[in-house]
Amino acid sequence: MGTISEKIFSRAAGAEAKANDFVLADIDYAMAHDGTSVLAVNAFKEMEMKKVWDPSRIVIPFDHIAPANNETSATLQKEIREWVKEQGIPNFYELGEGICHQVLPENGFALPGKLLVGADSHSCTYGAFGAFATGVGATDMAEIFATGKLWFKVPESFRFTVEGRLGKGVYAKDLTLYLIGKTGIDGATYKAAEFYGQAISELSVSGRMTLCNMAIEMGAKTGIVPPDEKTFNFLKNRAAAPYEPVYADQDAVYVKEPVYSAEDIEPQVACPHQVDNVKPVGEVEGTHIDQVFIGTCTNGRLEDLEVAAAILKGKKVAVRTIVIPASRTTLLAAIENGTMETLLKAGITLATPGCGPCLGAHQGVLGEGEVCLSTANRNFKGRMGKGGFIYLASPATAAASALAGEITDPRTVQI
Amino acid sequence: MGTISEKIFSRAAGAEAKANDFVLADIDYAMAHDGTSVLAVNAFKEMEMKKVWDPSRIVIPFDHIAPANNETSATLQKEIREWVKEQGIPNFYELGEGICHQVLPENGFALPGKLLVGADSHSCTYGAFGAFATGVGATDMAEIFATGKLWFKVPESFRFTVEGRLGKGVYAKDLTLYLIGKTGIDGATYKAAEFYGQAISELSVSGRMTLCNMAIEMGAKTGIVPPDEKTFNFLKNRAAAPYEPVYADQDAVYVKEPVYSAEDIEPQVACPHQVDNVKPVGEVEGTHIDQVFIGTCTNGRLEDLEVAAAILKGKKVAVRTIVIPASRTTLLAAIENGTMETLLKAGITLATPGCGPCLGAHQGVLGEGEVCLSTANRNFKGRMGKGGFIYLASPATAAASALAGEITDPRTVQI
Repeated sequence: MGTISEKIFSRAAGAEAKANDFVLADIDYAMAHDGTSVLAVNAFKEMEMKKVWDPSRIVIPFDHIAPANNETSATLQKEIREWVKEQGIPNFYELGEGICHQVLPENGFALPGKLLVGADSHSCTYGAFGAFATGVGATDMAEIFATGKLWFKVPESFRFTVEGRLGKGVYAKDLTLYLIGKTGIDGATYKAAEFYGQAISELSVSGRMTLCNMAIEMGAKTGIVPPDEKTFNFLKNRAAAPYEPVYADQDAVYVKEPVYSAEDIEPQVACPHQVDNVKPVGEVEGTHIDQVFIGTCTNGRLEDLEVAAAILKGKKVAVRTIVIPASRTTLLAAIENGTMETLLKAGITLATPGCGPCLGAHQGVLGEGEVCLSTANRNFKGRMGKGGFIYLASPATAAASALAGEITDPRTVQI
Repeated sequence: MGTISEKIFSRAAGAEAKANDFVLADIDYAMAHDGTSVLAVNAFKEMEMKKVWDPSRIVIPFDHIAPANNETSATLQKEIREWVKEQGIPNFYELGEGICHQVLPENGFALPGKLLVGADSHSCTYGAFGAFATGVGATDMAEIFATGKLWFKVPESFRFTVEGRLGKGVYAKDLTLYLIGKTGIDGATYKAAEFYGQAISELSVSGRMTLCNMAIEMGAKTGIVPPDEKTFNFLKNRAAAPYEPVYADQDAVYVKEPVYSAEDIEPQVACPHQVDNVKPVGEVEGTHIDQVFIGTCTNGRLEDLEVAAAILKGKKVAVRTIVIPASRTTLLAAIENGTMETLLKAGITLATPGCGPCLGAHQGVLGEGEVCLSTANRNFKGRMGKGGFIYLASPATAAASALAGEITDPRTVQI
């Protein structure tokens, strides 16, 4: 008799857990990247702890500034490499392996029924596999490094239903932005968002990752898609541990149960400087852009690159267009099936698998007054450069806009 | 009755020019990249000039910080884009097109008998095609933007001869480092270095570019390889203008005529922190390295990536290894012939075609005390990060060392 979250916390805390209970839960996997591991490791050292609770349950990918952009980040990365070695942490992913939120699923750590925490706000991505996954701060992560446990208030849940089918030219990102627009950036604060309905089941694993990735953008503690055959197929020969799928009970209690129709969803654009400032593409068509960025943990997967390549094939981009595959695996797959060749011939600029310019640290920071159409998850003022303006959209809208040099409805481009 | 340089200056100045003459010469092509165009354009604007002398003879590639690493570089790049548009300069190369010294030859601007200047010290690269090519400062470049002319003191020439054939595992880079070691970093100051002999003729166009690229590292004003069939084949369907090959006369006067034997040349390594601190690889074998960097205008061409891939094929790198193709064309060719797949599967980290970490601005800066084995042309203290140590070597030595995590003789690796 519980939501997915309640059932996962009941198992992880070793006793029945209900919404609003405080529980001390066992963490299945803990993640920190080059940006946050530095703080977490320093806090861990200050606790005068010698060894982490379980090296095999800690995952450290280098993605945020990869490769290093200056001596400071290089020296911090060096220190983390030494700590990882010292602690015997086997799951360390070097520069170029990819974005944490792609690397963990690819390596089978994002599993149904598991409790994952990451020192990164978009750790909710792993909910796409039916896990409870959320972001924590660096001192919380130090506590987990030491004990493998963390106190949680079990969240109340929202049950989102999206009925019907998405139309042509409308993707997981559009559905996601639409829900955020409807819910508002604080509309689901500290709730677990469970996603149901035909449009959700029809999403690929990649699309579900896009959706759950952005649950935090409506304030949610996590986003969860109930696992199904697509999930299990993805995990075949990949799961890092045995797992047991968890589903909500029929009588589970939800504090809200919004229902939407996929047919109502057009390509969406989140306008500066707030993620819920969402408009149908038609309302911003023709807006001048200086840069397009296709990538990130939200939309840098093979499926995303393929959608962009289909639109760009045989044409040339009109503005600088940075494409960053989410991982080495994504890059290799895009090379092997010709997608990367198509993109490069269309004039895109490829950069190292990782977070790229999403957080404004390198690889495509915006100049004063410049406008970027990005497939990322945040458009806050200054995020990609202090004088810049960020519009968020799907890879299809990004590619169509790259061809025109202005925001363009992907449904108008001849493929 | 002259050296190649004297004959090129005679043509460009419209009157017979001898070594040590001061001449006002017509520039065939002028290049400035994102790093130096800013200064040149500002100086040009201060001259209160409206239009450049000839937009079609100016080439602007963005390579040094591509994509932009912060708001400042992004805003400066934005200003240059606007100026390029305003001036109607057709030969503008965006982020990801590649390194200036690769982009100019690929697009047929580096031509036998031409006088090229670049606002970059390694502009001598174009001498690989029998041009007189040299680096100038930003204010000189502004003068050229305005008038198309520049004052030169015609250099005296050295005639280097390298007889015989390079051995297995020994490449253009080894030959180049060997000559720099013998000559010293100021041994050829303000001279034009002409290169002759069997080992030079047997170099590919790519190898000749490696050699001429580093002429500045012995102080030379330029390095020149007399054009031959290989040159003409490379230029077929590519030359941006008609050209006339220029050769030295039999009675040309050289101030030095050093002769070396290719058989004496082993794989070479230039040790920190000076380019002429050159040793045979055997003397530094086993030196621990933290990073390998294969790329740059010296050694980021297809041939270089292929040599590295042959060594890395089916194996895994032991240290982080950044590979940066010299241009979009190089990257595409490496994708098309499988080289990039081999490299990625061996664990290399790919970054955007451009200068990468060579100048320490981004994409692989070194941390405190870290050691990099690089295929670049300079190992000055602090160049790739202020606490770093740089060893220079060939792509083969770099790849062999990447496998071992320490400096390794490429001749010892089973291919």
